[in-house]
Amino acid sequence: MATLYKATVRYDGTNFCGWQVQPKGPTVQGALEEALGKIAGEAVSIIGAGRTDAGAHALGQVFSFRWKEGADAERLRRSVSQMVGPDIRVVDMVEAGEDFHARYSAVSKRYAYSFSQTREPDPFSSRYAWSIPMDVGKDRVFELAQGLVGEHDFAGFQASRSSVQDTVRTIYSVEEKAGGVVDVADDSALWRLEFHGTGFLYKMVRNIVGTIIDIARRATPESRIKELLESPGPFRGYTAPSHGLALLEVFYD
Amino acid sequence: MATLYKATVRYDGTNFCGWQVQPKGPTVQGALEEALGKIAGEAVSIIGAGRTDAGAHALGQVFSFRWKEGADAERLRRSVSQMVGPDIRVVDMVEAGEDFHARYSAVSKRYAYSFSQTREPDPFSSRYAWSIPMDVGKDRVFELAQGLVGEHDFAGFQASRSSVQDTVRTIYSVEEKAGGVVDVADDSALWRLEFHGTGFLYKMVRNIVGTIIDIARRATPESRIKELLESPGPFRGYTAPSHGLALLEVFYD
Repeated sequence: MATLYKATVRYDGTNFCGWQVQPKGPTVQGALEEALGKIAGEAVSIIGAGRTDAGAHALGQVFSFRWKEGADAERLRRSVSQMVGPDIRVVDMVEAGEDFHARYSAVSKRYAYSFSQTREPDPFSSRYAWSIPMDVGKDRVFELAQGLVGEHDFAGFQASRSSVQDTVRTIYSVEEKAGGVVDVADDSALWRLEFHGTGFLYKMVRNIVGTIIDIARRATPESRIKELLESPGPFRGYTAPSHGLALLEVFYD
Repeated sequence: MATLYKATVRYDGTNFCGWQVQPKGPTVQGALEEALGKIAGEAVSIIGAGRTDAGAHALGQVFSFRWKEGADAERLRRSVSQMVGPDIRVVDMVEAGEDFHARYSAVSKRYAYSFSQTREPDPFSSRYAWSIPMDVGKDRVFELAQGLVGEHDFAGFQASRSSVQDTVRTIYSVEEKAGGVVDVADDSALWRLEFHGTGFLYKMVRNIVGTIIDIARRATPESRIKELLESPGPFRGYTAPSHGLALLEVFYD
């Protein structure tokens, strides 16, 4: 009998074409499935809590997979983590209940979007934070993001390539924090927004961030948010770059 | 007439064979000289405040060079910074007095050595922090490092490949700080030591760190420090890896 396992994984997404397996290049899912497959001696499929885009990062992505009963999960975790290379680290692996599903069992997720308020990218943070103009007020950006807290139909913030039917999501909170997800000791230009919600549609966080930065730098009027919340989508506007985004945590009951 | 310029530069040293030009591979000095040479249309030599080892980083390395009088330093800075690629950033460039010398005029330097107190390297910090065993007490390491504050003949902590005559240096202070030089939002295993002193001999910081970690994990007795301070050198012992080291700042009068 095969048992269901739940694993938590961190990755620097810079060198990957995103989470989901696709033919264009290396993916995080692909690297994990390859390692598990080598150990198992047969193909192993994993299910991620959600996809992350090419260049986006994860501090606490979750995936599930079936493996032979009674395996030593900690030993398997360590082997996989060593095999996938330095950009990926499997931090936890446990047996899960038979009804567990990494995607469908998730009740909420937390994402961070990191900014560097400087015109010139820095060697230590440029892979993890979006460089935005100095004159974009941090308080203003935070205030605009706060305006999206609550239950809304986010169809207007969804990228076109999606077939999701129910586009209503709840954003529980948006927090503003000092430092990027990856921070540099002497760099005070780094800060981030953290979004906690029931779920996020395809590119929704990046489209929210792109829109509020556009409003903050007066490239688009504030009424744009209301328009997008009333729009059936898909999103038309500025999508913030993927490298500023990090999936922080996936919550389960 | 040529004028002397002083520049401050940051770099992620991961992909470089150190600061100083050498035939084995790309160096930071080489990249900067190449960019300056392209703009000048002739060879330009730069003098760094100090060499950094292959894989070591800098947040505030300083170099000097001669350039034609009346140049727009800010424009030159921006051009060079753009030409050297994303791993290097020239953050400042100003005219310097005729008696300025990036190496000989330096009165003190500050270095950081970052640790990750976990056995498994993390994707976000493994290029910037040394993974050390969990059971090495942070307080103990700090206490041992504090023991080196003051004026000493550090010949015994100097690597062999050096021709420096005067090996007496003063360490003004050692500080313990939370987080690595490059820090990760959810990673509490990262911390660092910051050393401020008149100067540091070849590999001196790495040899100090290697020795105190060896003592803290009881691989060598505490008397080893006294022995090394009385030894004519060269250093025999464990040299901490270069990627944990970052040159933070160079001070001038």
